[in-house]
Amino acid sequence: MTQQINLLSPDEQKTRLGKLRDEMKRAGADAIMISDNANKYYTTGRVFAGFVYIPAEGMPIYFVRRPVKLEGDGIVYIRKPEEIPASLSLNVPATIGLELGTLGYNAAMRLFKIFPGSKTIDATPMLQAARAIKTPMEIERIAESGIKQERVYRRVPHLYREGMTDLELQIEIERTSRLEGCLGQFRISGDSMELYMGNVLTGENADNPTPYDFAMGGAGIDPSLPVGADGSIIRPTDSVMVDVNGNYTGYMTDMTRTFTPEKISDNAMHAHKCSIEICHTLQKMMCPGIEAKVLYEKAEEMAKEAGLHPYFMGHRQKAGFIGHGVGIEINERPVIAPRSRDILAAGNVIALEPKFVIPGTGAVGIENTYVVMADGPARCLTNAPEEIISFE
Amino acid sequence: MTQQINLLSPDEQKTRLGKLRDEMKRAGADAIMISDNANKYYTTGRVFAGFVYIPAEGMPIYFVRRPVKLEGDGIVYIRKPEEIPASLSLNVPATIGLELGTLGYNAAMRLFKIFPGSKTIDATPMLQAARAIKTPMEIERIAESGIKQERVYRRVPHLYREGMTDLELQIEIERTSRLEGCLGQFRISGDSMELYMGNVLTGENADNPTPYDFAMGGAGIDPSLPVGADGSIIRPTDSVMVDVNGNYTGYMTDMTRTFTPEKISDNAMHAHKCSIEICHTLQKMMCPGIEAKVLYEKAEEMAKEAGLHPYFMGHRQKAGFIGHGVGIEINERPVIAPRSRDILAAGNVIALEPKFVIPGTGAVGIENTYVVMADGPARCLTNAPEEIISFE
Repeated sequence: MTQQINLLSPDEQKTRLGKLRDEMKRAGADAIMISDNANKYYTTGRVFAGFVYIPAEGMPIYFVRRPVKLEGDGIVYIRKPEEIPASLSLNVPATIGLELGTLGYNAAMRLFKIFPGSKTIDATPMLQAARAIKTPMEIERIAESGIKQERVYRRVPHLYREGMTDLELQIEIERTSRLEGCLGQFRISGDSMELYMGNVLTGENADNPTPYDFAMGGAGIDPSLPVGADGSIIRPTDSVMVDVNGNYTGYMTDMTRTFTPEKISDNAMHAHKCSIEICHTLQKMMCPGIEAKVLYEKAEEMAKEAGLHPYFMGHRQKAGFIGHGVGIEINERPVIAPRSRDILAAGNVIALEPKFVIPGTGAVGIENTYVVMADGPARCLTNAPEEIISFE
Repeated sequence: MTQQINLLSPDEQKTRLGKLRDEMKRAGADAIMISDNANKYYTTGRVFAGFVYIPAEGMPIYFVRRPVKLEGDGIVYIRKPEEIPASLSLNVPATIGLELGTLGYNAAMRLFKIFPGSKTIDATPMLQAARAIKTPMEIERIAESGIKQERVYRRVPHLYREGMTDLELQIEIERTSRLEGCLGQFRISGDSMELYMGNVLTGENADNPTPYDFAMGGAGIDPSLPVGADGSIIRPTDSVMVDVNGNYTGYMTDMTRTFTPEKISDNAMHAHKCSIEICHTLQKMMCPGIEAKVLYEKAEEMAKEAGLHPYFMGHRQKAGFIGHGVGIEINERPVIAPRSRDILAAGNVIALEPKFVIPGTGAVGIENTYVVMADGPARCLTNAPEEIISFE
């Protein structure tokens, strides 16, 4: 009944720690201590309560509070973090990296106290940078999610019934996703963004602004979670934008497709085609070395040339990006935004979502998840048909 | 198309701010600044991107980043927190409370810098204390959730089909909950606990330990989310414990019921009855002034007297509490645990979950959500039948 603490193969863990140690070296960290679930999953292949301590050289140490009975090299059971220094007495780091971007203030102060002689630096950017370049195994897991998500999206037209509300359709998509193996949990870094399973946006509701930094909005059904479907009946000429959770493997894909019961307006069709063209153009441009902001500028330029700028990335309220890294969480690096300083590298996995909100119709456009390749255009991992599909 | 920033009635907001200001006075805060979504929802009735600034006296100020076009007294649109002091120039607080328990370290440091002359103290305990005593309107919202959750639980036997896996049953419960109006989002304070919609635990899987601080465990279907249903086929003599999301109104109830396809063992029946007796006994004891730890001790004593101590709150791994406050989030004050210092007060809303894991059968027991009354026994808000229900 015992289980190994580390579920990654030795080679896979070595590759990931290697990338992380390059970042640690660059930042001058003698060790980092990880407490964020997404980062623990990245470095061990599992989530547990406790810490992963990674020195610049040598084996990681796993300080585990729960669950009981894990085994493996480097495992130390603790009841509280104050017990950690006893296990490190010969090797207290001069400079330690902590996840200051995600760690709570009180939790961080508690950890500072257990390393009183150490200088503390922020490990969040190191982990973000390492995680932004996916390993072949990670890309495989993301591709697996993409295949399952694609299967679900192909079934969306069969889930629609005339007179349905947006929420009723979303609930059937949620069920179909779960039966296909979707884990449900929609992992987002930070606690200010909240979303349940995804977003189905229909008609005018697409123009309702939300407080969250998602690409699209929607009023939701309650002010405690003001985003997404609002219970409106789907009308024959509405667009129905489906952007639902692709987390089937612990690694997510992000895919959006647009449907309609009958037919949407010509202007909305025009905008949808523009979204597809932007994706295809950017897919070819996404090569190692290109600046993320150049991709944003190209997308915006294409939207302007098509006469669609007032509707690009929202109408009443606009999102400030057209793409983002995706992996264990939905908001990873690089960010494809006008002021992004990110530069693309082979192994980046990026969701591109150049979308439009057309008054009278709703949201249109697509989203795909791509891997940046060493040579040639990026590879698409979300291959459901891109055109607007009528439910008829 | 414009909306008011404050969705609470003037009286309701006054009551909530009054409680909060009592806590602020006790702690010596001249103002608090709120950024946590749950606390913004508590003080305004809505979630938005930005801050609620509450001075010890006078009107709150709402610093809003998103959504666009909110209106109301005290609203100030900002692009970044550094713009806040300009609006407060005449009234910079000598001591300011920030949510140091939930605010990220980097976010907290950024806020410290915009109040360089102010002493900073932790507002998290103030907000926890105020939120622990629910207003009549909040209790009404929780009761509404309880009625809807009860409706879903009564339908569980009709969702079961022979040969189903635990996960397939859970998916049908999720769908039924969503169609009944469940918002889906399962709000937990802090980022180390993760759960999707709830937990359906069947047979031996109940004895699989998790890393999370939930009362019960389960292996889950992926090491990235190791909790709950694991895909096992439900056997005729298994217990099936259903503990699924009761968030129908922005305010949650927490209810657990136990089912079985045919019949569970006598020992498991005995433990289930003990759980019901503990709940009924504690319901009478839960009066203003009683110490939370006394409730825990009574529950543990009853489990011991019934000869069930080895199975109480888990078998291979045990939870350290039998109850918790519930409201906007699932882990509020008071905590019913052996070392809790909480003392009950009228208006506390508490979920009691004295559960057992019986080897060979699975998890048994119930969970109810109660309001502590000024006089007499606590009032139960989750009134589905408590006995074990057979699917036959």
